[in-house]
Amino acid sequence: MSAPRPGLGAVTRGRILFGGDYNPEQWPEVTWHDDVRLMRDAGVNSVTVGVFSWSRLEPRPGVREFGWLDRLMDLLHEHGIGVVLATPTSAPPPWLGRLHPETLPRDADGRVEWWGGRQHFSHSSAVYRRHAAAITEDLAARYAHHPALTLWHINNEYCTADWGDEAAARFRDWLRARHGDLAGLNSAWGTAFWSQGYGDWAEVLPPRHAHYLKNPTQVLDFKRFTSDMLLECYTAERDIVRRHTPGVPVTTNFMPLWAGQDAWRWAEEEDVVSVDLYPDPRDPHGAQHGALVQDMTRSQAGGPWMLMEQAASAVNWRPVNRPKPPGLNRLWSLQAVARGADAVCYFQWRQSRQGAEKFHSGMVGHAGEHGRAFREVGRLGAELARIAPEVTGRHSRADIAVLHDWHAWWASAHEGRLSTRVDHADLLTTWHRALWRAHLATDFAHPEHDLGAYRMVVVPQLYALTDRAVENLVGYVRDGGTLVSGFLTGVADQDDRIREGGMDARLRALFGIRTLHEWWPLETGETATTDAFDGTLWSEEIDKTPDAVAEAVYRGGDLDGLPAVLRTGRAWYLSTLPAPDALRDLLASIARDAGTGPVLAGLPADVEAVRRGDLLFLLHHGRGTVTVEVPGSHRDLLTGTVHTGTVVLGRYGAAVLAP
Amino acid sequence: MSAPRPGLGAVTRGRILFGGDYNPEQWPEVTWHDDVRLMRDAGVNSVTVGVFSWSRLEPRPGVREFGWLDRLMDLLHEHGIGVVLATPTSAPPPWLGRLHPETLPRDADGRVEWWGGRQHFSHSSAVYRRHAAAITEDLAARYAHHPALTLWHINNEYCTADWGDEAAARFRDWLRARHGDLAGLNSAWGTAFWSQGYGDWAEVLPPRHAHYLKNPTQVLDFKRFTSDMLLECYTAERDIVRRHTPGVPVTTNFMPLWAGQDAWRWAEEEDVVSVDLYPDPRDPHGAQHGALVQDMTRSQAGGPWMLMEQAASAVNWRPVNRPKPPGLNRLWSLQAVARGADAVCYFQWRQSRQGAEKFHSGMVGHAGEHGRAFREVGRLGAELARIAPEVTGRHSRADIAVLHDWHAWWASAHEGRLSTRVDHADLLTTWHRALWRAHLATDFAHPEHDLGAYRMVVVPQLYALTDRAVENLVGYVRDGGTLVSGFLTGVADQDDRIREGGMDARLRALFGIRTLHEWWPLETGETATTDAFDGTLWSEEIDKTPDAVAEAVYRGGDLDGLPAVLRTGRAWYLSTLPAPDALRDLLASIARDAGTGPVLAGLPADVEAVRRGDLLFLLHHGRGTVTVEVPGSHRDLLTGTVHTGTVVLGRYGAAVLAP
Amino acid sequence: MSAPRPGLGAVTRGRILFGGDYNPEQWPEVTWHDDVRLMRDAGVNSVTVGVFSWSRLEPRPGVREFGWLDRLMDLLHEHGIGVVLATPTSAPPPWLGRLHPETLPRDADGRVEWWGGRQHFSHSSAVYRRHAAAITEDLAARYAHHPALTLWHINNEYCTADWGDEAAARFRDWLRARHGDLAGLNSAWGTAFWSQGYGDWAEVLPPRHAHYLKNPTQVLDFKRFTSDMLLECYTAERDIVRRHTPGVPVTTNFMPLWAGQDAWRWAEEEDVVSVDLYPDPRDPHGAQHGALVQDMTRSQAGGPWMLMEQAASAVNWRPVNRPKPPGLNRLWSLQAVARGADAVCYFQWRQSRQGAEKFHSGMVGHAGEHGRAFREVGRLGAELARIAPEVTGRHSRADIAVLHDWHAWWASAHEGRLSTRVDHADLLTTWHRALWRAHLATDFAHPEHDLGAYRMVVVPQLYALTDRAVENLVGYVRDGGTLVSGFLTGVADQDDRIREGGMDARLRALFGIRTLHEWWPLETGETATTDAFDGTLWSEEIDKTPDAVAEAVYRGGDLDGLPAVLRTGRAWYLSTLPAPDALRDLLASIARDAGTGPVLAGLPADVEAVRRGDLLFLLHHGRGTVTVEVPGSHRDLLTGTVHTGTVVLGRYGAAVLAP
Repeated sequence: MSAPRPGLGAVTRGRILFGGDYNPEQWPEVTWHDDVRLMRDAGVNSVTVGVFSWSRLEPRPGVREFGWLDRLMDLLHEHGIGVVLATPTSAPPPWLGRLHPETLPRDADGRVEWWGGRQHFSHSSAVYRRHAAAITEDLAARYAHHPALTLWHINNEYCTADWGDEAAARFRDWLRARHGDLAGLNSAWGTAFWSQGYGDWAEVLPPRHAHYLKNPTQVLDFKRFTSDMLLECYTAERDIVRRHTPGVPVTTNFMPLWAGQDAWRWAEEEDVVSVDLYPDPRDPHGAQHGALVQDMTRSQAGGPWMLMEQAASAVNWRPVNRPKPPGLNRLWSLQAVARGADAVCYFQWRQSRQGAEKFHSGMVGHAGEHGRAFREVGRLGAELARIAPEVTGRHSRADIAVLHDWHAWWASAHEGRLSTRVDHADLLTTWHRALWRAHLATDFAHPEHDLGAYRMVVVPQLYALTDRAVENLVGYVRDGGTLVSGFLTGVADQDDRIREGGMDARLRALFGIRTLHEWWPLETGETATTDAFDGTLWSEEIDKTPDAVAEAVYRGGDLDGLPAVLRTGRAWYLSTLPAPDALRDLLASIARDAGTGPVLAGLPADVEAVRRGDLLFLLHHGRGTVTVEVPGSHRDLLTGTVHTGTVVLGRYGAAVLAP
Repeated sequence: MSAPRPGLGAVTRGRILFGGDYNPEQWPEVTWHDDVRLMRDAGVNSVTVGVFSWSRLEPRPGVREFGWLDRLMDLLHEHGIGVVLATPTSAPPPWLGRLHPETLPRDADGRVEWWGGRQHFSHSSAVYRRHAAAITEDLAARYAHHPALTLWHINNEYCTADWGDEAAARFRDWLRARHGDLAGLNSAWGTAFWSQGYGDWAEVLPPRHAHYLKNPTQVLDFKRFTSDMLLECYTAERDIVRRHTPGVPVTTNFMPLWAGQDAWRWAEEEDVVSVDLYPDPRDPHGAQHGALVQDMTRSQAGGPWMLMEQAASAVNWRPVNRPKPPGLNRLWSLQAVARGADAVCYFQWRQSRQGAEKFHSGMVGHAGEHGRAFREVGRLGAELARIAPEVTGRHSRADIAVLHDWHAWWASAHEGRLSTRVDHADLLTTWHRALWRAHLATDFAHPEHDLGAYRMVVVPQLYALTDRAVENLVGYVRDGGTLVSGFLTGVADQDDRIREGGMDARLRALFGIRTLHEWWPLETGETATTDAFDGTLWSEEIDKTPDAVAEAVYRGGDLDGLPAVLRTGRAWYLSTLPAPDALRDLLASIARDAGTGPVLAGLPADVEAVRRGDLLFLLHHGRGTVTVEVPGSHRDLLTGTVHTGTVVLGRYGAAVLAP
Repeated sequence: MSAPRPGLGAVTRGRILFGGDYNPEQWPEVTWHDDVRLMRDAGVNSVTVGVFSWSRLEPRPGVREFGWLDRLMDLLHEHGIGVVLATPTSAPPPWLGRLHPETLPRDADGRVEWWGGRQHFSHSSAVYRRHAAAITEDLAARYAHHPALTLWHINNEYCTADWGDEAAARFRDWLRARHGDLAGLNSAWGTAFWSQGYGDWAEVLPPRHAHYLKNPTQVLDFKRFTSDMLLECYTAERDIVRRHTPGVPVTTNFMPLWAGQDAWRWAEEEDVVSVDLYPDPRDPHGAQHGALVQDMTRSQAGGPWMLMEQAASAVNWRPVNRPKPPGLNRLWSLQAVARGADAVCYFQWRQSRQGAEKFHSGMVGHAGEHGRAFREVGRLGAELARIAPEVTGRHSRADIAVLHDWHAWWASAHEGRLSTRVDHADLLTTWHRALWRAHLATDFAHPEHDLGAYRMVVVPQLYALTDRAVENLVGYVRDGGTLVSGFLTGVADQDDRIREGGMDARLRALFGIRTLHEWWPLETGETATTDAFDGTLWSEEIDKTPDAVAEAVYRGGDLDGLPAVLRTGRAWYLSTLPAPDALRDLLASIARDAGTGPVLAGLPADVEAVRRGDLLFLLHHGRGTVTVEVPGSHRDLLTGTVHTGTVVLGRYGAAVLAP
């Protein structure tokens, strides 16, 4: 039996972590002293070091150069700045690829991914893993007792895949563990179709380039395998650092809404859940995208979490990359805090002058300490320090859960599906946006989680569901819960085997679907008119059961008179995607019936309200000035001002109200 | 001297074949009994078995597992259902690729096409051919005398190519046969251009990835070679089954208007011509696309033919895949019968629950026997049985032939052509559509066919023509025929060598073109105005001969005053593409002058009339109700009703009128 | 000390060279006699022979077949036609690739570029270079004293790259020479970023396919290396022919505005600068594109230059390829002469009937001698002969220089830049167009050239500048010059290292930029409004210095009130791209202040005026009739007519006015 693991609280100790990735190896040491001076000016209390330092730490195989890092750690500690120490295993040095070409991944076409970028390692390479373990071991041994060390950061944004031969061997191992024997594999993959029956394990391969459509379950299992192999890489390094420093928590940074990792599963293996978040400053839905990722990360963490990376201003990987206008960095940082972040960090401290990301902004940009971006960073650091004592450690749970599952996402994405316009992440975003616009606070949950505490559960789309998940949903409604589901839910089982009748019979019974005759995907620009709203993207030809209520009915077209929205008791089924306002209003109405409602009533346009514990965050995403009615008296932690009845917010304004 | 081959009549024996691909290996045997019950309910009298059964029949190299197929054949026979037995060679088992990687094709970039999909065989692989022959041999031997066997189905949708080393060796053999020696090759390919002279056969390769434009004749010959290699694969298997069962006809299923096979050549090697046909239910031109493929297949067959595959409802390979609305499956099936199909079959009987095509509809869909699709299938089966006695075996020949040739298509498609907007298949479709909209019945013919029986011959585009074809066209007009040709016809010879003057001199003389100064391709959205219509896509700067008549003249622009449509006697030349209505009206007018006309006069919009023998099919592609005037009294074979003077057709309505 | 090299004058000897690529190996020798007859009819005095003749000259390794070329050279000489003799090394014979596969290039994905097209040689292949040298040696030895020989043409349109292993070895040599040791390489490439530190030269590779963004300086150096390797190929062959024929000048033909070669550097190695020029006849900006390329080529040549290739009518490599309408070939040819061309040549003499370019027009097209294109060619030949005596050898220098540098272009193009909408060549074109529309004559210059003779220097965008270039610009303004610069100039140094402050401090001081806070790239369709014009593509958040004048100020949006156009003395900085008319007017106004102005005042729309020496060319790019006011009396060399006060020009009309 193991001791409980230390969490984010062990790092924050009442502060909000503020800082970012720090890559001093790009600069002469004289600059380091300028760095720590500016860090202190800006209220930085934590930096992440070593993320891409492998070739500096091990310039030749087996050599170790820790001197520079010793000096850096000492310098940071001397100035009271904690260190999130990263294993450098995300970017192996060139010598590894040269001496061991088998550590380089291959894509489905057989192309090698060479060094010269980053993340050119095969998760399945024994040689890579051995070298990664060795540098991790030495790093952990050397800094285990360094007083600056606060948190371990393993690798960086795990996101690679490999279709090569060593990955094929590991894939076979993984499949053996999942399916037992070839009979199990053949059954799960449906290899009776297209003469794909496997008679020998050596015949089983990753889903490489093929003449025509690939086996969907092979593709699905390969995505699972990829997530699991990366997780193995993570846990191998995690276990090494834990052995050296049982008291120091461990994290790895997720990418937001990233298809490559089953983050529910990964979060279980982390002491601290952290995420990188880069909404587009030009995106009118940027704030909601942030809210979604924050809700999801908080739900994965089950408590406070860490915003590991954001940009002080522009990024450099979109076709057109805009800076953040004045005030936006502060507003979006406070939005993360409102949703449970106890750490507000950036990639990176000082903008690089060379390399592939020299146009990615830093807390200290090319314009230096006189640049607007740095001045805003400094003001934010002071504000976070001010509110931290009353904020950190607090956690709120929402009344509404949105269900999301990577396996359902993966299964839904096969090239041979009915509509390439249907995208799991888009639907998740669209439904969350409707809830967010209705000011309904949301958690995310896995379909097998205990949902009993939620007043309402929303399923944008869960194409594939295990029996356990189906029974969980049915039980949730049976026990009084309100369930709202979109189309293409429960169509397949965990092996992407279509459920009899085209949808799980238990779910059909739950929603009141007697026969699901046909799916009717809609083209771009095409709508399905109902008596209540216009639907897009999808529609269905359904016979309902006698007890089901058609809450909306198709009008015109081939589906005239058929149900568009079905309700049986507290279970709702939407066979099309209502227009945004209609979806928002429908969900608001169902939520009301389910006994929950908006965070705050009567909010002006563009104002978001978020509760964290008994604090109320008001966030103004617009550019004019608005007055928010807030019953009672509250003290704004940002300013110390006491507001009674109303709060006025300017452009990108925010308030953190305590009772 | 060989005995005449049995044809489709030997299979139908007065019935219309009705059924589809049946893949019972995907289901437990208990389901088979449910299947035959439903088949009988639906009027199914024929199923295609074994198309993708290789890994089931030969799970390990040399092993044979026929027991399941024995039981299946017996069961089907017991229920009176005939079997179209397929060789399973379209999808080799994984073991073949693993043990013999040289059986896997490579694309022009050198990428391997791995197993995991289907059709991952190299047509040139001796090992593949040996294994394919062995399983075919054993299959034929085993079921030669089985009473359920009605027809052999070789492979499936031959469509692969291979740029690898063994294909290169076969390509050299093929080129030796075509061109004799290297001098012949160098002359045909024009290798004096760009220093491509070959001095040794070993230097000759498939047209692999190159720095810039590839040699067009090398590309053209590679397409010919590919079609011929696939045909060799076909005939090798055909000859095996014929040896065992001289009395059972043989087919392989074509894909509609598919660029990969010279179907004129292939059809000569088949006892029964069959085709797969999948118009998009959302396509406003879907019915005409069906008509085109049916006209072409009938012309290739020279008599009744087999609709081997269609979808009961949706397919799964378009970006957005719609089901067939109520009535459309019936209507399009009757359209095929009207145009000579004596078999109406589907891919597939029971929709798969796993694999890459689980969203491709089946006769029995996911919704099962209560689904709308199956109910419609059953009603159609009954109707086909009703009309069969008076329909099967009949054949009609049209007055108008549309010329089409794969070699001309291939030659016209080089990357270095004047306009990538000009596409042989698009032009073929556009011209056929104009004729179809004018209710003019059409056959298709090869430019070297005897055209004497046709009142009018139409050439949408035949970029490359042999001398024999040119003389055939000239002779046809000389003998009194009416010829209408689009632009870019007769530009090149069979080796894609531009004819002197930019167009064959005999054709220029035929049409009255003195000098073809310049081709003027038009951009998207651009039109060439004439005094008669607006042209698109193309225009030409031509000096006409004195005796030619300019039936339309360009107005404005650089071609002002030059002829757009030339006529010399009965030979018409269109140097641009008239707008759809103008092309329809022009062809109708020329047809009238040539002594032919619409199938039925005064047809309402959306109603198609087709004659098969003395039967008149009326097909309503619209959704309201229309009244069709049909002089005289007719009995509708579908209903038994006798109509006098008019026939009323509802949404997707049809009538099969006997005198 | 070497003797001065012979130049173009040694070839023209008072004539304008007129002719084109001649590839008689594609035709029987009987056609050659027809060719020379037509050449004489058309006024052809020069043809380029042998460009793609390698496989004809050396059909098997080491064999030489010069007989046909002997006969051809004699025939041409006999008819007074000079020969530009090409080394055939642009397209190796198939046997070279077969016997030496290492001579074939590989792309970044590892794909081989096979023979079957052209230019399938690796610039780094020692074997290729050896074979190229050998055939060049023998060719030069054989024809050194042939009286027809007038000019050497090395290879053709050098444009290939290679990521393979032999190229990697050469790349390492090149890098050693540039950066000295690995420390220098690591510093220049910024390998501290993303763990890319190189510890052994063997680890250094071309920028092959990578998982994510590649190292920008590695990519930049690879482009430099590629240009230099190709230049080595060129100089190796050049030195061979020079050894044999010291009195015969040498050229290789550039492609217009081509990213692959540093043409400034290349031009230094040529005796004659030549270029291929193919404006799209459909492009409304075709004439200005021609003007740009002609201005650039003249600037590279520093005197008369050679139009090596243009099309008599259509090309065949655009998606849609239009012929030249009547008169356009003449007009654009005269435009080249106006801008300094003393040679007007074509690809190719006789249009090919086979091969990849059979739809590329020739001087003798498929329509032959009666075709319009040939008739126009013949008339042009006569006109050029008429004006040649007063035209050839003259050279004019403009008052305005536009700066362009390939290294800045290359550095600006990294995939990780702020806006993929910003393109160096587009900006160069847009700024040149504004000047052209204002009738301001322009040279091009390199940023390190002596600019003292120019009244005004224009920098559309020079993202990377060496210190020497920066100091050159600063010195130019200090010495009284007027400098106008667009945004993203001086951002980086020669290794793509961002200058401190985001822009070189000396340039910031020059223009009056105190702090460059943020770059604000604009989306498609987005504009940045100022009080003077609307900007597109880009904008910037700048604090100006007190002495700088904001000549235009942003209005509205996030940049409201900030300077859009800054001026400090004679140095102008545009932080956005003004709309076309605004840019034209602004540049015209600045030019006026700088003491220069349009070539001719009061020109009608569509009329271009160009001075060459004391000749005035008037070129009418429109289709109606216009009257041009030209003070004084002039004799039109084309017609002999004397014009006083006005010149009337018809459709595509031109005049060459002598005082």
